[in-house]
Amino acid sequence: MEELVVVKIGGNVIDHPEALDAFLTDFAQIKTPKILVHGGGKIATDIASKLGIEAVMVEGRRVTDKPMLDIVTMVYGGLINKGIVAKLQALGNNALGISGADGNSILCNKRPIKEIDYGFVGDVKKVNNALLDHLMEGGLVPVVCPLSHDGQGNMLNINADTVATTLAKAMAETYQVSLLYCFELKGVLSDFEDKNSVIPQITLDEYTVLKTKGSISKGMIPKMDNSFDAIQNGVKQVVICHSEDMLDVAQGIKKGTVLKK
Amino acid sequence: MEELVVVKIGGNVIDHPEALDAFLTDFAQIKTPKILVHGGGKIATDIASKLGIEAVMVEGRRVTDKPMLDIVTMVYGGLINKGIVAKLQALGNNALGISGADGNSILCNKRPIKEIDYGFVGDVKKVNNALLDHLMEGGLVPVVCPLSHDGQGNMLNINADTVATTLAKAMAETYQVSLLYCFELKGVLSDFEDKNSVIPQITLDEYTVLKTKGSISKGMIPKMDNSFDAIQNGVKQVVICHSEDMLDVAQGIKKGTVLKK
Repeated sequence: MEELVVVKIGGNVIDHPEALDAFLTDFAQIKTPKILVHGGGKIATDIASKLGIEAVMVEGRRVTDKPMLDIVTMVYGGLINKGIVAKLQALGNNALGISGADGNSILCNKRPIKEIDYGFVGDVKKVNNALLDHLMEGGLVPVVCPLSHDGQGNMLNINADTVATTLAKAMAETYQVSLLYCFELKGVLSDFEDKNSVIPQITLDEYTVLKTKGSISKGMIPKMDNSFDAIQNGVKQVVICHSEDMLDVAQGIKKGTVLKK
Repeated sequence: MEELVVVKIGGNVIDHPEALDAFLTDFAQIKTPKILVHGGGKIATDIASKLGIEAVMVEGRRVTDKPMLDIVTMVYGGLINKGIVAKLQALGNNALGISGADGNSILCNKRPIKEIDYGFVGDVKKVNNALLDHLMEGGLVPVVCPLSHDGQGNMLNINADTVATTLAKAMAETYQVSLLYCFELKGVLSDFEDKNSVIPQITLDEYTVLKTKGSISKGMIPKMDNSFDAIQNGVKQVVICHSEDMLDVAQGIKKGTVLKK
């Protein structure tokens, strides 16, 4: 099977233009088929606040009412996605930006209301592998923003880590997929006061112990849960690493935290 | 040669959700390969104004400084484009939204500064027919927003009428192209006080006389110039019509103003 690299770049890098430029310069050098998934960062919150719309967070998730949906659709689907596409084009990659609505690439259900009403937030129902294959066969590099649709005319906000995991799992049917979560830390830390205390590799059992002990920072838990979900569902390799180390990792150099079954 | 319909929908329709929904319901019923080009409407100006950014117009063209470029990238590339894509998906069309940067579909030059500095505004340099063909071969319906890039990492604002004409002309190499400009009037009017005074067909010579006499409203002139440019460069048919008449026109019923060589 052919190799495919799915790279997720976090919001913190998006928020720093120089870090983003450096990351994109590296990403452009990956020669295998590849998909870039980007997060949102703080721009949406800043613009919402300037427009008098307040961001509401519940358990680390943004609650997306209609005004906030419009903001994230503008910022994630427009400003950030097109900015990345234009830069990758300048770097010689034929990037094409999509949301899950475009080409019906990621069909979602609006999350049902239980204890919390998350508003216009999607849970992934189905990935359109054929669409992504068709784009890559045309030499295109899909750049995916964390937005999708419900098939009934509504856009939905989706978590970027979940998008990356879901795409990686779906594409694992026909590719040897490496999934790289890139952010502003060097990997999963054993001591989150010490930014160099990177755990070089971790199994699900070890992770479960660390999570129970409270050694894994709260922000890392959804990312780790997503990562283990991916390797238990056909993804060949998952690495959590610094955005600056992404190209090394993609080229097989051991950096960051490698997740094991 | 296979038929291709390129439809341009104007900003005034974009600004009226019910008119837009009705239009998209009709558009979804076109069976031939098709491309939708949408304008911007007033949303960008409204949002810019709420954010304290003032829109500057010179000779009917928006002057696009960097803050305004960010606004139009958000609104045209995000809010409007994804909203249309989600609605077409719900209507059974596999829509995929693009700017000229996506897949390098429309490469532009930043307009050189002469008497007026238009800022981040693009003039079309090259249409990537192969990309549009590849998307349509995959069963996709391209939905094009009036934004592009300069190949050097910068997004650019482009006129939606020009996008539609340029795409129609480029695609005329391999398709029998019909270009339909749809807006809030029934066609080109001989008396712009009388909304029913539609000129059923007009030649370039007749247009030149009417333009000299001042009978053509100023807002129509760039649209008409674009239209004649299209039919003189390989486009089979150009019709200027009401958005409500688009499907009839696409199905060969005579409505609106037909432009003749």
